[in-house]
Amino acid sequence: MSQFHELIEFIRAEVNKGLKQMSIPDEPGYLYDPIRYTLKGKGKRFRPILVHLAGRTNNVDPDALMNMALAVELLHNFTLVHDDIMDKDTIRHGQETVHSKWDHSSAILAGDGIYTLAQIVLNSLPDRANDVCRFFNKTTLDICEGQALDKDFENNYEITEDQYLEMIDKKTGSLLSASAALPAVYIGEKEPVVNKYEQFGRAMGKGFQIHDDLLEISADPETMGKSLGSDIAEGKQTMMVIKARNHFSKEWKELISDSANSELINNIHLFFVENGIEDETRSMARSYFTSAREALGELNGVNTDELFEFVNLVENRTY
Amino acid sequence: MSQFHELIEFIRAEVNKGLKQMSIPDEPGYLYDPIRYTLKGKGKRFRPILVHLAGRTNNVDPDALMNMALAVELLHNFTLVHDDIMDKDTIRHGQETVHSKWDHSSAILAGDGIYTLAQIVLNSLPDRANDVCRFFNKTTLDICEGQALDKDFENNYEITEDQYLEMIDKKTGSLLSASAALPAVYIGEKEPVVNKYEQFGRAMGKGFQIHDDLLEISADPETMGKSLGSDIAEGKQTMMVIKARNHFSKEWKELISDSANSELINNIHLFFVENGIEDETRSMARSYFTSAREALGELNGVNTDELFEFVNLVENRTY
Repeated sequence: MSQFHELIEFIRAEVNKGLKQMSIPDEPGYLYDPIRYTLKGKGKRFRPILVHLAGRTNNVDPDALMNMALAVELLHNFTLVHDDIMDKDTIRHGQETVHSKWDHSSAILAGDGIYTLAQIVLNSLPDRANDVCRFFNKTTLDICEGQALDKDFENNYEITEDQYLEMIDKKTGSLLSASAALPAVYIGEKEPVVNKYEQFGRAMGKGFQIHDDLLEISADPETMGKSLGSDIAEGKQTMMVIKARNHFSKEWKELISDSANSELINNIHLFFVENGIEDETRSMARSYFTSAREALGELNGVNTDELFEFVNLVENRTY
Repeated sequence: MSQFHELIEFIRAEVNKGLKQMSIPDEPGYLYDPIRYTLKGKGKRFRPILVHLAGRTNNVDPDALMNMALAVELLHNFTLVHDDIMDKDTIRHGQETVHSKWDHSSAILAGDGIYTLAQIVLNSLPDRANDVCRFFNKTTLDICEGQALDKDFENNYEITEDQYLEMIDKKTGSLLSASAALPAVYIGEKEPVVNKYEQFGRAMGKGFQIHDDLLEISADPETMGKSLGSDIAEGKQTMMVIKARNHFSKEWKELISDSANSELINNIHLFFVENGIEDETRSMARSYFTSAREALGELNGVNTDELFEFVNLVENRTY
């Protein structure tokens, strides 16, 4: 394992330890059992890892970084628990979703509780907690907007690539952006510097999500740990679906009309490959990762080696 | 109208104006339409009014008070939107509930957005925003715990009066407590003083909720603006139901067994009156309002006249 991979594993283990050590009461179990259950899910912890790596470029105090890292991971988990209700997803992070294992009420409340815990964690930052919170909460509103667009786009067969990009920018880009920028906010960096970290994170986020769309359709369900292809079956948009609809309207309509076909997901994947849609989407993801690297290149006077390695890691992930 | 009533009406109008003037974007409508709709509901605004009155005892800056008042009202509305999903309530503040007018996803997201707006409002406090936020977020966790207990108690026919009191203390008492105490936190009052405001608010909260239980069963649906008796029909606990079950077990079981009876709600009310349960519950509410007055009496060196009048107002409300 390379030194960088060891660092990533170390941070991931520390984040998991931090989540485990959070002082979450036992009672009432109706609230805290689903919260504890959610936090022990096998998340990849990309966002808190990004907080740590971004903070290391400025030698930010590791305890403060862990604080922001945990808040970001909690925020992420809060949105997942609520999104899973809305999207009727049954598997998340290798285990049954909260609303599926318990019920809707438990999942609504667990999400609310997790977001509240994120706030409480951030409130304990020793400095500039309020600046950090303000940034964090604007990010949450962005994510809510992104999820709203996502829901709004369902079953709308006229969504353009630009609209899709706006949606994933809010839903995914904003939190990766915040993960990269919060440490700079915490140490009181000037706006142009904070903006550069944000720009890096946003580009990463879009690359990450498009790459995720690609992985979801090509990976097998066990590796992905969530209901494969459920997005498309539910009428959700992905970059490939939009490209297929726009460039191969008739053929695409014919293909998905037979939704009872048990081979549908495989056929869709084949369609994407044969029509060059997979390649085109892959190169689109690549261009965002390139933008992320460009933004990093414009961060002067700090060592961004680890962030460059992180872009490679995310770009080449296979699950 | 007395001078005090004019003050209350003035504050209520200002709070409504403040909610209306919040810079809530137009798009995406999927997120913001239900939020705007929620905030124009005819809430009584007791909590933000309490923030203002409590702050006036210390001449706290009115702009800062409005800031905290709006945050408290937003927090309250966030919990209502989510609770209404969980409790399947269809009417709230004189209009259809969000999940009923739109759907579950819209309501989950609207609640999340409203809570985020509350945070953003608080983050703009000029001083001690972080102390105020910490207090505010611990309150939210209390409210989540209270709602969890409430859900957990559903259809549990062994809940005691003490368990019920613990639940309403968290679900209702904690936010009235925070409304009374936040202005003191904001100006940096010492803990014993903050605690006294909290103690006052908590007692008020329990009195308020028990009084609400009484009003719900005796008022007509249009005045109350929510589905009358739905709590009991859904197996929820109220102080009267617990007293009936504990002291008149056999008769109570017989009464509610015929749940298809269209007169059930009226019969339940009659049962409470005839068996002295209504009187006993009323005197219980009164004792909490008395405790609230006692706590006020122990606040030295500040003018608590308006808070005393507020207790009277809440205790004597008929809707």
